[in-house]
Amino acid sequence: MQQNQNRLVTAGKAIRCKAAVSRNPGEPLVIEEIQVEPPKAWEVRIKILCTSLCHSDITFWKKSNGPFAIFPTIFGHEAVGVVESVGEHVEEVQEGDLVLPVFHPNCRECRDCKSQKGNGCSVFGNRLNPDMPRDATSRFKGMNGEVLHHFLSVSSFSEYTVVDVAHVVKISSKIAVDKACLLSCGVSTGIGAAWKVADIEEGSTVAIFGLGTVGLAVAEGARLRGASKIIGVDLNPEKFEIGKKFGVTDFINPSTCGEKNVSEVIKEITDGGADYCFECIGLASVMEDAFNSNRQGWGKTVILGVEMHGTPLALNTYFLLRGRSVTGSFFGGFKPKSDVPLLAEKYLHKELNLDGFISHEVSFKDINKAFELLLEGKSLRCIIWMD
Amino acid sequence: MQQNQNRLVTAGKAIRCKAAVSRNPGEPLVIEEIQVEPPKAWEVRIKILCTSLCHSDITFWKKSNGPFAIFPTIFGHEAVGVVESVGEHVEEVQEGDLVLPVFHPNCRECRDCKSQKGNGCSVFGNRLNPDMPRDATSRFKGMNGEVLHHFLSVSSFSEYTVVDVAHVVKISSKIAVDKACLLSCGVSTGIGAAWKVADIEEGSTVAIFGLGTVGLAVAEGARLRGASKIIGVDLNPEKFEIGKKFGVTDFINPSTCGEKNVSEVIKEITDGGADYCFECIGLASVMEDAFNSNRQGWGKTVILGVEMHGTPLALNTYFLLRGRSVTGSFFGGFKPKSDVPLLAEKYLHKELNLDGFISHEVSFKDINKAFELLLEGKSLRCIIWMD
Ligand SMILES: NC(=O)c1ccc[n+]([C@@H]2O[C@H](COP(=O)([O-])OP(=O)(O)OC[C@H]3O[C@@H](n4cnc5c(N)ncnc54)[C@H](O)[C@@H]3O)[C@@H](O)[C@H]2O)c1
Ligand SMILES: NC(=O)c1ccc[n+]([C@@H]2O[C@H](COP(=O)([O-])OP(=O)(O)OC[C@H]3O[C@@H](n4cnc5c(N)ncnc54)[C@H](O)[C@@H]3O)[C@@H](O)[C@H]2O)c1
Ligand SMILES: [Zn+2]
Ligand SMILES: [Zn+2]
Ligand SMILES: [Zn+2]
Ligand SMILES: [Zn+2]
Repeated sequence: MQQNQNRLVTAGKAIRCKAAVSRNPGEPLVIEEIQVEPPKAWEVRIKILCTSLCHSDITFWKKSNGPFAIFPTIFGHEAVGVVESVGEHVEEVQEGDLVLPVFHPNCRECRDCKSQKGNGCSVFGNRLNPDMPRDATSRFKGMNGEVLHHFLSVSSFSEYTVVDVAHVVKISSKIAVDKACLLSCGVSTGIGAAWKVADIEEGSTVAIFGLGTVGLAVAEGARLRGASKIIGVDLNPEKFEIGKKFGVTDFINPSTCGEKNVSEVIKEITDGGADYCFECIGLASVMEDAFNSNRQGWGKTVILGVEMHGTPLALNTYFLLRGRSVTGSFFGGFKPKSDVPLLAEKYLHKELNLDGFISHEVSFKDINKAFELLLEGKSLRCIIWMD
Repeated sequence: MQQNQNRLVTAGKAIRCKAAVSRNPGEPLVIEEIQVEPPKAWEVRIKILCTSLCHSDITFWKKSNGPFAIFPTIFGHEAVGVVESVGEHVEEVQEGDLVLPVFHPNCRECRDCKSQKGNGCSVFGNRLNPDMPRDATSRFKGMNGEVLHHFLSVSSFSEYTVVDVAHVVKISSKIAVDKACLLSCGVSTGIGAAWKVADIEEGSTVAIFGLGTVGLAVAEGARLRGASKIIGVDLNPEKFEIGKKFGVTDFINPSTCGEKNVSEVIKEITDGGADYCFECIGLASVMEDAFNSNRQGWGKTVILGVEMHGTPLALNTYFLLRGRSVTGSFFGGFKPKSDVPLLAEKYLHKELNLDGFISHEVSFKDINKAFELLLEGKSLRCIIWMD
């Protein structure tokens, strides 16, 4: 068998393969030969089948060295692959399994992972170091021996990567790999935010700031919950037609609102403010708009965007006292290992739209094209195929 | 009957009585003769029996003219009294009823009042004007005819006041009036925050910033819910002994923490952060400390303090993404008309400690003494008796 032959050849040894290395912030990635070390205890080496570009890659690719991205690094955190080999103690997955690497940890043993509240992980959830979670070292080397850093514990812009088992989700092989890939970050985040974090009720009014994949997945989640109004806010008018396919009922372009600001328009449409507002861009100023667009009494603002400049969110405390709340989540409040397989089931039962999120496909060598498309606002998810 | 005789004498006419008038921010109140007009439609004129001083009076008394306090004004919003007469359309209460005036409206007819979520009132809940809610005029005049403004729709530092029926709660005459008075603001706010807003579960860890009446009422609510740790934070070490009576288990004085900041100490005591943090002071910087003392995953910060300087609350959005939330409430999320009578019942059944909140009593002429005591941190609630 092909799989077993591969195993004999590669398991326990470093693998030479291609990766898209990011040497300097904001510069095009360079496809290079690298070495990927074998997985240590609790680690899984994955052959990536396809990966896609999420805005969080862009945010940290643009930044200079910081806690989450240390250059040179290998970006990419939305992907699907096959287990090539596993390190000691790994029993959850084995060679040949179809898996998603997920940036959000889920050790299954800690108080948070065992709790029904939230989706934190108290063992791995507080790390700032981007390399392997247990020993804070890298499994990637350039051919000259230099260390290449991991990104968000995933680094999927590489033919092979090593991921801690706490960041691996086994998934049914029935699902087409490009659709599975979407569940590894953006789509799960948006749907989870609608279902778990906001827990939208039938008839609710919803405002979504940013109609990228995350925002449109919130819309899809809100639509499935029976929201009465789903207002989409975006500067890019092309997102409005696309939004309709995901249930968006009303559109606001902040640059053509005239005298009124976005919050005023939303308050008019919803008779006082939306029940739920979601920020899916990553700008503190927009988070404030979202907060100000919430109704008093029970309005809830859910922050999903990763703030691009590290700017804090400034809230008028009097508006909080009037019964508003602000919350946020990584991965939409979903616990990767238990919730993602359920989403895959829903897709297979045609209860969830995933196909619409894939707008483009490129081959690995053209990965910089995926960056251009997202930066220009032309793509939702661009699938980057490894072969 | 005395009541009916009074009615014949006063109903429908202006009443001359004494009030503690605040002419300039921060200056001692002056007991003056004033005129209180009869109640208009939907209004209730109340003979105040006793009133107490809440920190919100202090906050606005210190400020220059602003939306919530227009000088000259009559402060006071925590009180109990007897209905002297009612205006047209008032059927809910009648002459002789024991009532609490409550700053937080509850019209019982609007979408918010009818909803089970939150305690907003969409009809009266968005006003900034401090005078009567339906026509924005005052029922108080000085003897020279000058207008004296209302405060928070209550103005209880007067022998008689006029309050909209949406701000009146009828209460059992079985409860001692000074205990009933406490339910009109601070104690209800703290208990509601623990029960309705945070909905504290058994075994939870709780941190309370500010051990005044509001903070100690949060502690009482948390204690009754079976919280495992109730950490009190206050600059005034005298609050520590008092706190123990309300269930506070651990004390932190930020001025004697040494190298560590309060959040670090709380994270140590709670193994990662408290499940629930409450800000009961009114300082944005302390609200930030509260937010930073919450555990990741599901930590909830509840803002009760009315920010003294109008400073916004600045949040690190990355900490929100880690699964924290911030919310706030007026009146602890309780709906005054339906929830306050239940609290009175609980007190009568000895299921709630109210007596401990009364630290001092003064007669109306010594009302400035009540201000001094609260400003010096010597009192919890000081009951101000009208007779
Ligand atoms: N919390 C999480 O777990 C999580 C997971 C995935 C992504 N994210 C974050 O979610 C955000 C969205 O990611 P995405 O991949 O959907 O991005 P995207 O680039 O596909 O979409 C962003 C959208 O926002 C619009 N936009 C940009 N600035 C705007 C403004 N000022 N006003 C209105 N619209 C504006 C763009 O036109 C675009 O349609 C990013 O911040 C990303 O880092 C968070
Ligand atoms: N949200 C509502 O509906 C509502 C209702 C009532 C009161 N309030 C507000 O709640 C707050 C508390 O009211 P109260 O009547 O209990 O006040 P209080 O004066 O009795 O208590 C405040 C406590 O905070 C302590 N304190 C002050 N500054 C501090 C600091 N920097 N660090 C630590 N401790 C500090 C004081 O020593 C005191 O013990 C006020 O802001 C008030 O306006 C809000
Ligand atoms: Zn992502
Ligand atoms: Zn865990
Ligand atoms: Zn008060
Ligand atoms: Zn109402």
